[in-house]
Amino acid sequence: MAIDGKTQLYGFFAHPAHHSLSPLMYNLTFAHYGMNATYLAFDYTADLVTMVASLRHLNFGGANLSMPFKSRIIPLLDEIAPEAQLIGAVNTIVNHDGHLIGHSTDGPGFFAGLAQKGVHFQNAHMTILGAGGAGMAIIAAAAAAGITTLDVFKRRNATYAPVAAKLTELAAATQITINIHDYQATAELTHALQQSDLLVNATNIGMGASNELPLPLAVLQQLTPQTVVSDVIYFPKETAFLKAARQLGCPTYNGLPMLIHQGVLAYKLWTGAEMPLTQVTQAMEAQLYQK
Amino acid sequence: MAIDGKTQLYGFFAHPAHHSLSPLMYNLTFAHYGMNATYLAFDYTADLVTMVASLRHLNFGGANLSMPFKSRIIPLLDEIAPEAQLIGAVNTIVNHDGHLIGHSTDGPGFFAGLAQKGVHFQNAHMTILGAGGAGMAIIAAAAAAGITTLDVFKRRNATYAPVAAKLTELAAATQITINIHDYQATAELTHALQQSDLLVNATNIGMGASNELPLPLAVLQQLTPQTVVSDVIYFPKETAFLKAARQLGCPTYNGLPMLIHQGVLAYKLWTGAEMPLTQVTQAMEAQLYQK
Repeated sequence: MAIDGKTQLYGFFAHPAHHSLSPLMYNLTFAHYGMNATYLAFDYTADLVTMVASLRHLNFGGANLSMPFKSRIIPLLDEIAPEAQLIGAVNTIVNHDGHLIGHSTDGPGFFAGLAQKGVHFQNAHMTILGAGGAGMAIIAAAAAAGITTLDVFKRRNATYAPVAAKLTELAAATQITINIHDYQATAELTHALQQSDLLVNATNIGMGASNELPLPLAVLQQLTPQTVVSDVIYFPKETAFLKAARQLGCPTYNGLPMLIHQGVLAYKLWTGAEMPLTQVTQAMEAQLYQK
Repeated sequence: MAIDGKTQLYGFFAHPAHHSLSPLMYNLTFAHYGMNATYLAFDYTADLVTMVASLRHLNFGGANLSMPFKSRIIPLLDEIAPEAQLIGAVNTIVNHDGHLIGHSTDGPGFFAGLAQKGVHFQNAHMTILGAGGAGMAIIAAAAAAGITTLDVFKRRNATYAPVAAKLTELAAATQITINIHDYQATAELTHALQQSDLLVNATNIGMGASNELPLPLAVLQQLTPQTVVSDVIYFPKETAFLKAARQLGCPTYNGLPMLIHQGVLAYKLWTGAEMPLTQVTQAMEAQLYQK
């Protein structure tokens, strides 16, 4: 649909932002529905008060946020959905006539991506490496996805204590068992892996040109093919972590389903409609992996 | 060119705004040049401080303004070009890395539109009906277009005295003779018409479904075919005013060349490049007159 005087703006706000695949994903969906809207990425470096005023007064249909705004935006919005409140982060803003509602679709998007591949959990055990933004979102969504026990491995740095406290809160809120461990506690990690239905790398180790593993290979090799292994990284298509897990016979999934499904859920919040999943996935894969 | 993470935003800010043909005009031009940019119309009702912050921080490539912002924006911009300073109105904003420069391309656009039709002036006499925003922009640009004497007819209302003062300023600044007359002074109007190389309707009388004339038919009929007659109105395509003038044998031009050429000049300020004029004109005419 050609842009005209009535075309509504949607946007992605982050810094950096120009690498984003969100414009591709949403514009393809707008086109699919003949919806008079367009989605742009804004490499945003100014204050959040201005961002929020722009969202309201340029009448954005909705927006997505990434680093470094996901947490800082919260005090400026009119309403925060429970799942976003729980993790203290927002990746999706819905604009109801200037009333801005913050949501987090990252965690639900992670499990929706797996579910769409036919991977479901019930009374399951999950081990997750890293408890940054992505990790925390996945942890908070785990209960709803059928996880009952969760082992979190995190570097023992300045954020260890506050993350531990936050995990205690999440465990209480979602009524599952969450244990935090030092990333270096190899014996604990080995033990956790052996019991895991799902192992997730939510660190950025292995991203891009790096060929690093987020855990020692000898530990990773304790996995059995029963464990589903997932990485939040979607580029490269197969990280060293996923490759090693695949060679052990595990079903493996990279971060693309999470990226797409956080968008599916955002689009649904904005419009009530479903993204054309096959078309979007093909376009994203072509953009990421075929050049 | 498909929108991606690097697509830059341009926009039109007005209230109302959604009727605007500017998105058509500029997006067609962006497409023509394969330029990674998109132009949207914003029906804007909030404060100008927010507008200016949005222009800067969403990194707009440029913007156009219309009612009710053209004058009120001036104190908030970083720099005002001389022609905009002269009339106290801005219709085009150039964004140089957050440094916002206000221009007015309406008046130069009016004469560029006529020039493109082969209509040029030298030591010429012009009569103009109305001295609102469009009229004042045309008056301020008249000297550069070869007009040396200008008769302005304006309703004797609350703005008559300030407009008269402003015209005295403009006459001094542009070194031409400008006379202001009461719109009701029929004898003066008749006399002015008889000497005019160019007669312009810069009132909104005759716009849309109205079939009114901006001056009495008996006065209009004093015109001879030597006078070029132009209307700033572009819808209907031929106002009653232009129709009557055409029937008297005068060359007539509606407001579309002005609308297009204020855009041509804005685009040139933003990018240095020329709009594809034939293509843009055809698209605008199709949109306006073929439905």
